[in-house]
Amino acid sequence: MRVHPARSGLSPGRRKVVAASVAVIALVMASCTGDDSGNGDGDGNGSSGASGDLADIAEARGLTDADLIAAAKTYVPSGQHDEYIMFASGGQSGQVHVVGVPSMRLLRTIGVFTPEPWQGWGFGAADTEAVLEEGYAPGTEELRWADTHHPALSETEGDYDGQFLFINDKANSRVATIDLRDFETKQIVRNPVAINDHGGTFVTPNTDWVIEGGQYAMPLGWEWASLDDYETDYRGLITFWKFDRAAGRLDPAQSFAMELPPYWQDLCDAGKLDSEGWVFCNSINTEMATGMTHGGEQFEAATGANETDYLHAINLVKAAEVAAGGGTETINGFEVIPLQTSIDEGLLYFVPEPKSPHGSDVTPDGKYVVVSGKLDTHANVYSFEKLMAAIEAGPTEVDPFGVPVIAMEDAMEAQVELGLGPLHTQFDDKGYAYTSLFLDSAVARWSLGGDSTPEGEEPWTLITKTPVQYNIGHLTAAEGDTVSPDGKYLVALNKWSIDRFFPTGPLLPQNFQLVDIAEGGTTMPVLYDSPLGVAEPHYAQTIKADKLAPWTVYPLGTDPSKMGGWDTPTADMVGDNATTDAAQTGVTRDGNTVTVDMTVIRSHFAPDLIEVKQGDHVIWHLTSLETTQDATHGMAVPGYNINLSIEAGETVTVEFDATQSGVFNFYCTEFCSALHLEMMGHFLVEPA
Amino acid sequence: MRVHPARSGLSPGRRKVVAASVAVIALVMASCTGDDSGNGDGDGNGSSGASGDLADIAEARGLTDADLIAAAKTYVPSGQHDEYIMFASGGQSGQVHVVGVPSMRLLRTIGVFTPEPWQGWGFGAADTEAVLEEGYAPGTEELRWADTHHPALSETEGDYDGQFLFINDKANSRVATIDLRDFETKQIVRNPVAINDHGGTFVTPNTDWVIEGGQYAMPLGWEWASLDDYETDYRGLITFWKFDRAAGRLDPAQSFAMELPPYWQDLCDAGKLDSEGWVFCNSINTEMATGMTHGGEQFEAATGANETDYLHAINLVKAAEVAAGGGTETINGFEVIPLQTSIDEGLLYFVPEPKSPHGSDVTPDGKYVVVSGKLDTHANVYSFEKLMAAIEAGPTEVDPFGVPVIAMEDAMEAQVELGLGPLHTQFDDKGYAYTSLFLDSAVARWSLGGDSTPEGEEPWTLITKTPVQYNIGHLTAAEGDTVSPDGKYLVALNKWSIDRFFPTGPLLPQNFQLVDIAEGGTTMPVLYDSPLGVAEPHYAQTIKADKLAPWTVYPLGTDPSKMGGWDTPTADMVGDNATTDAAQTGVTRDGNTVTVDMTVIRSHFAPDLIEVKQGDHVIWHLTSLETTQDATHGMAVPGYNINLSIEAGETVTVEFDATQSGVFNFYCTEFCSALHLEMMGHFLVEPA
Repeated sequence: MRVHPARSGLSPGRRKVVAASVAVIALVMASCTGDDSGNGDGDGNGSSGASGDLADIAEARGLTDADLIAAAKTYVPSGQHDEYIMFASGGQSGQVHVVGVPSMRLLRTIGVFTPEPWQGWGFGAADTEAVLEEGYAPGTEELRWADTHHPALSETEGDYDGQFLFINDKANSRVATIDLRDFETKQIVRNPVAINDHGGTFVTPNTDWVIEGGQYAMPLGWEWASLDDYETDYRGLITFWKFDRAAGRLDPAQSFAMELPPYWQDLCDAGKLDSEGWVFCNSINTEMATGMTHGGEQFEAATGANETDYLHAINLVKAAEVAAGGGTETINGFEVIPLQTSIDEGLLYFVPEPKSPHGSDVTPDGKYVVVSGKLDTHANVYSFEKLMAAIEAGPTEVDPFGVPVIAMEDAMEAQVELGLGPLHTQFDDKGYAYTSLFLDSAVARWSLGGDSTPEGEEPWTLITKTPVQYNIGHLTAAEGDTVSPDGKYLVALNKWSIDRFFPTGPLLPQNFQLVDIAEGGTTMPVLYDSPLGVAEPHYAQTIKADKLAPWTVYPLGTDPSKMGGWDTPTADMVGDNATTDAAQTGVTRDGNTVTVDMTVIRSHFAPDLIEVKQGDHVIWHLTSLETTQDATHGMAVPGYNINLSIEAGETVTVEFDATQSGVFNFYCTEFCSALHLEMMGHFLVEPA
Repeated sequence: MRVHPARSGLSPGRRKVVAASVAVIALVMASCTGDDSGNGDGDGNGSSGASGDLADIAEARGLTDADLIAAAKTYVPSGQHDEYIMFASGGQSGQVHVVGVPSMRLLRTIGVFTPEPWQGWGFGAADTEAVLEEGYAPGTEELRWADTHHPALSETEGDYDGQFLFINDKANSRVATIDLRDFETKQIVRNPVAINDHGGTFVTPNTDWVIEGGQYAMPLGWEWASLDDYETDYRGLITFWKFDRAAGRLDPAQSFAMELPPYWQDLCDAGKLDSEGWVFCNSINTEMATGMTHGGEQFEAATGANETDYLHAINLVKAAEVAAGGGTETINGFEVIPLQTSIDEGLLYFVPEPKSPHGSDVTPDGKYVVVSGKLDTHANVYSFEKLMAAIEAGPTEVDPFGVPVIAMEDAMEAQVELGLGPLHTQFDDKGYAYTSLFLDSAVARWSLGGDSTPEGEEPWTLITKTPVQYNIGHLTAAEGDTVSPDGKYLVALNKWSIDRFFPTGPLLPQNFQLVDIAEGGTTMPVLYDSPLGVAEPHYAQTIKADKLAPWTVYPLGTDPSKMGGWDTPTADMVGDNATTDAAQTGVTRDGNTVTVDMTVIRSHFAPDLIEVKQGDHVIWHLTSLETTQDATHGMAVPGYNINLSIEAGETVTVEFDATQSGVFNFYCTEFCSALHLEMMGHFLVEPA
């Protein structure tokens, strides 16, 4: 069997690859100019239908007819709700952002990996501290931030079911589980094998597995190794976290990872319908470059040397069987299938994919995988059926590590030329695909083929492009990566905003642009520019709001950490230390431990005086007796880094040592009533 | 001289005070129902002027004519900028939010008291860590959050000048200084005398002083004292921070505080024009209640017992002279004017004010102080001229601590009945005042009197009320607390949103509602509902955008901590360790200290390999060679809690011990180019 050097790929006649990395870099440096809003023709009067007051306002404010139509399509009147909810990763904020569509209003930020005091997330509440601590590792630093990349909504039969949301931390290879009853993070798991990830999270069609893809190669198990030994000691990794829906948690004991060659694995997607059971990840740096200082070229040049990298096709069903059957090695307590086992058992196949791809996206029918190579101008469409046939026929090549390589032409269905810098693809309900073009700063609409070809369109054809401002990374269409996309709306997650908003110093927001994809063909206007100045989100998913069933209050005494799966009876969620009637309140001492049982309700704490001695250990339970939606209380202890958010019905515990003496006025930090300022008490710490 | 028991006040015929606290509490508990959007008549077709496409969209989306007009008044097309910028405190988030008006889009969150990784705020960058550390105190905990309440834009001659923004931390009595060239926090000072504050920050008309008001009484100097000794050992405080504009920093050495009786001092305002040199603060709990557990009533009842509390009128000019002249005692290194000195020197006068007030707001002409008592139904208007005359005439009463008390009727100009729960007042350009009504959930427009009476209106009269959703706290009108308000827009900062937005679990956003105040008289519609789901802002100021002059890039090599005042030459801002050319880059070792000199530019780090030994001390300097707006890079070190934001031209240093061994792939966390994923390097820590 011949060794495939990851350089061959298709013949020049079938595709166009941007030739020289130097040229690409020049393009990158020169990008982001111009002022094309993609939003109307600039003509102040036309046929939209404005006259009278509306026309006067439009004239006074310089609005075009297209602007008025966009305003009418995005305005959500007071008291009405957005039709869709977008969950966007928070990038380096370490959080998740919840945005209403079409209004594009930021409804809430969810504290995930980074402490956030408004939510009382990591500022004393024992249940939140416990979740954050899960994400550290013995002997390592407390990780108080993350780089969240790819949110994944839980699915049932390939459709969002509105129950859970998963999100990865690229910086530290962690995955979080968020419960969409209360929009709170319930779990953080840290990968004990990989030091970083990127291509996650993604879920399988019934959320049996949460996929955490890889990124930069490293010695497995957090070991050290010289870059001189890169090919022997560095490895890639993909991790499959088993989701226990009844428990509402990922189960590390049932999870496993697969060792991969030391390429940089990137985004993944789970197969669905026809391709269910398989997983598709792409890769970059199959060149195995180790950088300029280590004697090579800069990564940005070196990693573009090969004409092709490798699409990784993984047989997850079979891999899970191998893992369950003991075909693993244990690294830091975690099960890992060795690369040679994956090769021997037929769990892993490679297919060449054009040049430094980013997105790997399975079509709604599960029949195709769309790979966008950012240094290649195409959407490259692989056929799952052809891929299976080629595997069945037996690959004729292997990569340098012995992984079987399917010839690109044996699996390729079509290549659709889109433009410069294609990254990520989503889908609608009409058979169109939408791909972000980073270097073109545009969204491309193109037609799928086969049974999915849109009415009246040629298959596998570019239909139109809409300019966006600027440098689009990912995009999200309404339910656009499920088995039944909704169409209607698409959001372009633009990384640069430059001149779009009033400048807030050198650090600018991103620009989320809402694109109207309701009409087919060449009509695809930008409707709205939405700054995101609290983070740099990377990826988002958009769900129909009516699929969500959020709680508006907690059942009395709920400890949110006891919520478990969605079938958990509410009686099982009551906190062990919930104080549900006045008779239970008080302050008790046992040696140096002082226990406070407190109720909170508009607008007082009971008790409202706590006297301790310096050095005492304080265990402070608070239960909200509120039953009204939005009747949230806070509880801050000055000088002590403590701030809780106590939502209606919730019970919370905070535990700390009274190290500082003095008079600390604890108080409610949510403006709960007209007598909110009076909702306070005294925490007196007498000097030792 | 008779002791004034803080209970007399005006005769019953002149004002209406909500009688019983119990009744008020019942009202609070029953608030927040109904569905009046204040936004149009619900009639789907009228005279706004929609036909054709626009009418079709309106019908399909259920928009009324009023909705279409509101949409047209608030929509800001792609590439156009908002006319006003609102700076809102972030409440328990500890940050400041920057919002565009009229679009109500959140343009950016500024990291202030709480570490925020997207901005690299408190995640390794030495300059940001130094600012956060300033806000701790020797021997106390690291305070990693705050309860920011009242932002104050710097002023010149009573008008916003767009240079600096100040904000207080209620929880821990701290004040921060933000530079509006780069929207970054430059300084945090912690008050060494008070443990908490509330009524700050406010500035004097030329920003000579930044006022930090008080809140709950406490032993001064962070001491402990029993509640049994409340009247003798607990005190209130107001602090005047001297602002050194040339240095761009508050100067603690030139600052001072004034000891006050142990009431709960609340919001303040600085006099202007006629009243420049004076400061007006209100108070609650002149009852000196110490709570239920201490043998009294609940605070919410006890603090409403008195019919009046005390407006504090402070002669700041004279107080500064007394402080400069040595009339202070030193507490924890900070100068404090004793209460008796203030009495003896005529620095402090009290005027009864109706029942538990919140806002204290000086009219644009400086002639009146408007006090809104939240358990009283009026805007109570005090005349500065009358107050001065009464002081001149000599007060005839004193409070229990000997502070002279002016009779309410001697200083009162008018009382305007507004409704339930009036809190805070702002002003427009036509002579109208706007007061938030918490219990009514409404904004009241009323007319000023004297020279300021609006054309065609009666003086001191309620004109109209607009319902808001729900429970409005503060409000902000465009430049509405300066000597020259702009009118046009007002934002209602509603504390509860309940049913306004799709619910995000039990914890809901606030609802910032934009109110159109351009037209006078009874027209005052709500235009837009804006969720704020990243915090609970308390107060905001709104500045004309063209008064701001933000930088879009840093001059090459700028260390933002060296920026100082606005006249600082850019050459003086260059970081000591800026690496501005490739020849300077490299890794050097001196004993166990490893120094890295690194440049960052799209899309590589130079050098891209750093090899150290476990236990080494690492000093890592990074300079961005970018000169393009929005060309921001990040730099994350996995496992090490380090994430930097390196804006174009900026130089940053991070310093840490390499405690953990292994291979850490440092990488750029801002999506800077198509080759962003390739912008990485290896930080190798060889085991000891």
